[in-house]
Amino acid sequence: MATNPVIAIVPGDCTGIGPEQTAKLFAAGRMRDVARMVVVGDIRVLELGAKQAGVDLNFRRYQSPASVDWDADGVPVVDLGNVDPEKMKIGEADPASGKLTGDTLARAIEFAKQGEVDAITFAPLNKQAMFKGGWEFPDEHKMFAHLLGHTGMFSEMNVLEGQWMTRVTSHVSLRTAIDQVTFDSICRALTLANDTLRKAGIAKPRIAVAALNPHAGEGGLFGTEEIEIIKPAVDAMQKKGIDCKGPFPSDTVYLKAFAGDYDSVLAMYHDQGQIATKLKGFNKGVTITAGLDVVFTTPAHGTAFDIVGKGVADIGAYESAVRLSAKIAARQMADQFGDLPSE
Amino acid sequence: MATNPVIAIVPGDCTGIGPEQTAKLFAAGRMRDVARMVVVGDIRVLELGAKQAGVDLNFRRYQSPASVDWDADGVPVVDLGNVDPEKMKIGEADPASGKLTGDTLARAIEFAKQGEVDAITFAPLNKQAMFKGGWEFPDEHKMFAHLLGHTGMFSEMNVLEGQWMTRVTSHVSLRTAIDQVTFDSICRALTLANDTLRKAGIAKPRIAVAALNPHAGEGGLFGTEEIEIIKPAVDAMQKKGIDCKGPFPSDTVYLKAFAGDYDSVLAMYHDQGQIATKLKGFNKGVTITAGLDVVFTTPAHGTAFDIVGKGVADIGAYESAVRLSAKIAARQMADQFGDLPSE
Repeated sequence: MATNPVIAIVPGDCTGIGPEQTAKLFAAGRMRDVARMVVVGDIRVLELGAKQAGVDLNFRRYQSPASVDWDADGVPVVDLGNVDPEKMKIGEADPASGKLTGDTLARAIEFAKQGEVDAITFAPLNKQAMFKGGWEFPDEHKMFAHLLGHTGMFSEMNVLEGQWMTRVTSHVSLRTAIDQVTFDSICRALTLANDTLRKAGIAKPRIAVAALNPHAGEGGLFGTEEIEIIKPAVDAMQKKGIDCKGPFPSDTVYLKAFAGDYDSVLAMYHDQGQIATKLKGFNKGVTITAGLDVVFTTPAHGTAFDIVGKGVADIGAYESAVRLSAKIAARQMADQFGDLPSE
Repeated sequence: MATNPVIAIVPGDCTGIGPEQTAKLFAAGRMRDVARMVVVGDIRVLELGAKQAGVDLNFRRYQSPASVDWDADGVPVVDLGNVDPEKMKIGEADPASGKLTGDTLARAIEFAKQGEVDAITFAPLNKQAMFKGGWEFPDEHKMFAHLLGHTGMFSEMNVLEGQWMTRVTSHVSLRTAIDQVTFDSICRALTLANDTLRKAGIAKPRIAVAALNPHAGEGGLFGTEEIEIIKPAVDAMQKKGIDCKGPFPSDTVYLKAFAGDYDSVLAMYHDQGQIATKLKGFNKGVTITAGLDVVFTTPAHGTAFDIVGKGVADIGAYESAVRLSAKIAARQMADQFGDLPSE
């Protein structure tokens, strides 16, 4: 449809599987029903990807996403001309490539700020290469927030098969994480999770809240945060109409959620959520940066240096990422025009 | 064999599935090759269990395990005459039953101290019922240590399919757990894990050590415990000949272990290990109290109040628990007589 949201596709780090995945994504053409996709990147990276993937693609250069002729043939590309993959060490973390990955994302974000794209989906990047290349953020989500001048709450969420996992604290020491678990931070995280799931089309998200201490503190025997902080926050957010429950012992709450009792689990700290999601195979899912004005999605897996160039990289998670970007962007657009699609 | 170790079988809490599981255990008779089993408990509980399980059993009363005639027919029982299941609420946590569950375990421990049994395997108990019944310990392992006058290191381990999961800290608040992660506590836990796996027949256990902080502290960015405490402890224990590695980020170390790279993972805190093991189905495995003079094993699942009396309770984990008790006890016996069985 001509009214489908415009998604900027960023091929990620050119030393990883992003280029061949992006080539496959366009060759497969399965996203046409949900999104109008335009690559923001370097056409040489796409040519490398097409060669690696063994697919034929025609590219059509544009100055900006707004100038794309959506009726024309070929893959629309805003060719930044900034990345020459010949100069990079393919299959390795390369700070030079990491720098350009960040530069390219920053350009896509500029287009989003100007309203030329409705969301951004990017292929895998390498955090370490970006950091060493000069984009010194603990993760890309903080970089995005910085570039957007965002000062409020935002968070990574991990999505797989209708399950949305998020957390109150993130890339800080466990000791600092405990300090950051407050009434306010839990309320903000619950509000963000609820809003994000609603934007994704879940009318009344069912959110389980993990406890901080073992056995949820065993009635105060093993810590009082559940009694003094977490339960009051859950109660307060329930009163505001959020369907949240807890705190639940974290060693069983994920079992319940994965069994379908909840749409989402709010973890208190990084590893609590990540142990569960990695064991459950969320690397086959999608990572979304929730809470920013711009929708960002990416496949949860990494650059997979061990299989680069072999043409075997799967694009299932990449397609799921595009689909999620498109879904949320479509609802935001409909929301603006008072035409919320029904589920 | 007449020289198989003598295992005291304690039917657990009579309000749970322990009685019917114990009846099934003897009816199946699959443990005869590895253990000489004697029940320490109340014969009325066993009769209830046989009825619930729909099996026929003959019981033979003895004054103590040492007086059992192993050539005689029937299930040998040291009948304590202390538990009348008619007086209990079957299928519920009952403090009266919890008290007697503890009393019965204490009697079995007395027999172990006197050298009349080589190990103890018990059916599921209910921690809360025991606590409310007067056995006020955070868990049964601490109760066992208390009754044995044990003052050194000991720990729960969770065992499933050759994987041994344990931890440095246990039933304390997360904040206290961080304080308890010290060079000494990690060294003690590694030594205990190594010793326990060796006793179970693993000649050179491969132990992975989990980090405390996300991304193992990301080189000191998210906490310094990995650099200042955990790595030095791992290095020190390596020098003492233990095949330990780490610290590894805890959200991937379990994936590696479950894939077969390690025999054991040492967690820093309760939920780190328990999130992973519960998701992996360790409730189908065995829990062992490691580090005490007496070997204790139990199926990792609970009293399963929802299925009590239906005769459907599985005994796979119970049999695994008996087998593990027998294996360790046999090696201890052989060790005493200088006749260590080869693997």
